[in-house]
Amino acid sequence: MRVDDQALVQLITEEVLRYLASSNGQRAPEGDTVQTGIPIGVSVRHLHLCRADLDALFGKGYELKPLRELYQPGQFAAQETVTLVGPKGAITGVRILFPLRKKTQVEVARTDAIHLGVMPPVLLSVHDGVGAPITIVGPQGSLYLPDALIRAKRHIHMSPRDAEQWGVRDREHVTVEVEGDQGALLKDVIIRVSPEYRAEMHIDTDEGNAMDLCCGQRAWIVAKD
Amino acid sequence: MRVDDQALVQLITEEVLRYLASSNGQRAPEGDTVQTGIPIGVSVRHLHLCRADLDALFGKGYELKPLRELYQPGQFAAQETVTLVGPKGAITGVRILFPLRKKTQVEVARTDAIHLGVMPPVLLSVHDGVGAPITIVGPQGSLYLPDALIRAKRHIHMSPRDAEQWGVRDREHVTVEVEGDQGALLKDVIIRVSPEYRAEMHIDTDEGNAMDLCCGQRAWIVAKD
Repeated sequence: MRVDDQALVQLITEEVLRYLASSNGQRAPEGDTVQTGIPIGVSVRHLHLCRADLDALFGKGYELKPLRELYQPGQFAAQETVTLVGPKGAITGVRILFPLRKKTQVEVARTDAIHLGVMPPVLLSVHDGVGAPITIVGPQGSLYLPDALIRAKRHIHMSPRDAEQWGVRDREHVTVEVEGDQGALLKDVIIRVSPEYRAEMHIDTDEGNAMDLCCGQRAWIVAKD
Repeated sequence: MRVDDQALVQLITEEVLRYLASSNGQRAPEGDTVQTGIPIGVSVRHLHLCRADLDALFGKGYELKPLRELYQPGQFAAQETVTLVGPKGAITGVRILFPLRKKTQVEVARTDAIHLGVMPPVLLSVHDGVGAPITIVGPQGSLYLPDALIRAKRHIHMSPRDAEQWGVRDREHVTVEVEGDQGALLKDVIIRVSPEYRAEMHIDTDEGNAMDLCCGQRAWIVAKD
């Protein structure tokens, strides 16, 4: 399968939808998502690197170049991509997000994982458990990381003001209803609160494709788990 | 992507789980699914052929050979597979199910559709709307079918006795809760009742992968839509 094409189509689709949503003023200002619903962001497979791993893959002191700003303030998609390799297959063109982190984290959907031949755990981050092994190949080197690969647990970023209005707190688990023809209620969605965040629900491409969701559609917290 | 491998892994996994479920006696007898839950069947991309299209792809009068019996009585997966081709990509090793039908129907998940470069409608069958175009390539010929490609709408097969016990009727839309760590409630699931059916909920691989579901896990009808 031409996974490059697939990732590209998804990236472009998301970008267009982001643009349309923002240009129509549909993006809610902080704290108003109780009325408007929480925008959904579908995360295509990607990775975050630590300084040492960026050096190993792209060369000592390499600086990532921004491709576009993400919805979360201060977060960027880089122009640079890598290849992920597992025991059964490889995926090229996997995008790096930045700024850099303390520990490298690679996030894929279950469909990607089946292709790679690994079964990573569903975790909020690599700091919440032990990830699966993955090989990352860059232009100046490659790395075998024994525990960097995860499937990202579905979660909602929000500011303290949003959290107050929804009546939820950091790390709380909630049930969320998503809109659309393939509507569903997703249980066990984790709330993440920080002054750095804008309200946005993050799901992966399997979840997005299963429920016909794309960026800009809305979610509502309907219960606490 | 080596979609053959991916499909194979899924088929084998499902087969093993089916075997384990049946050998442990976990498969519920007809009418008892209100207590036990309804077994979930994850449908990997596949197709049903009409006589004329089987002739065109495999040769006049060709008879499909059974690979294995499906959970629904009288339904089989064939040994024969075809290649699906769309404007953006191809998928090899797509399995034919039988017996033959009056009209050919090709069923893929949204992830498959993105790879093929088409966006088929979500339909219960090709008799409920207009499918998308797809090219099917067999060993003795190929076909361009203008409206055969669909994404199967999630649905539940059941016998009249099961339907009576659940208090639902044919073509009714219900909300279903699925078990598992990535639990969810799926809205707009369509009930199909026939004396030919055993109780089983059919979802596609995107839905299965999004919710970590595989064959033998359980679903419960929790509301009518």
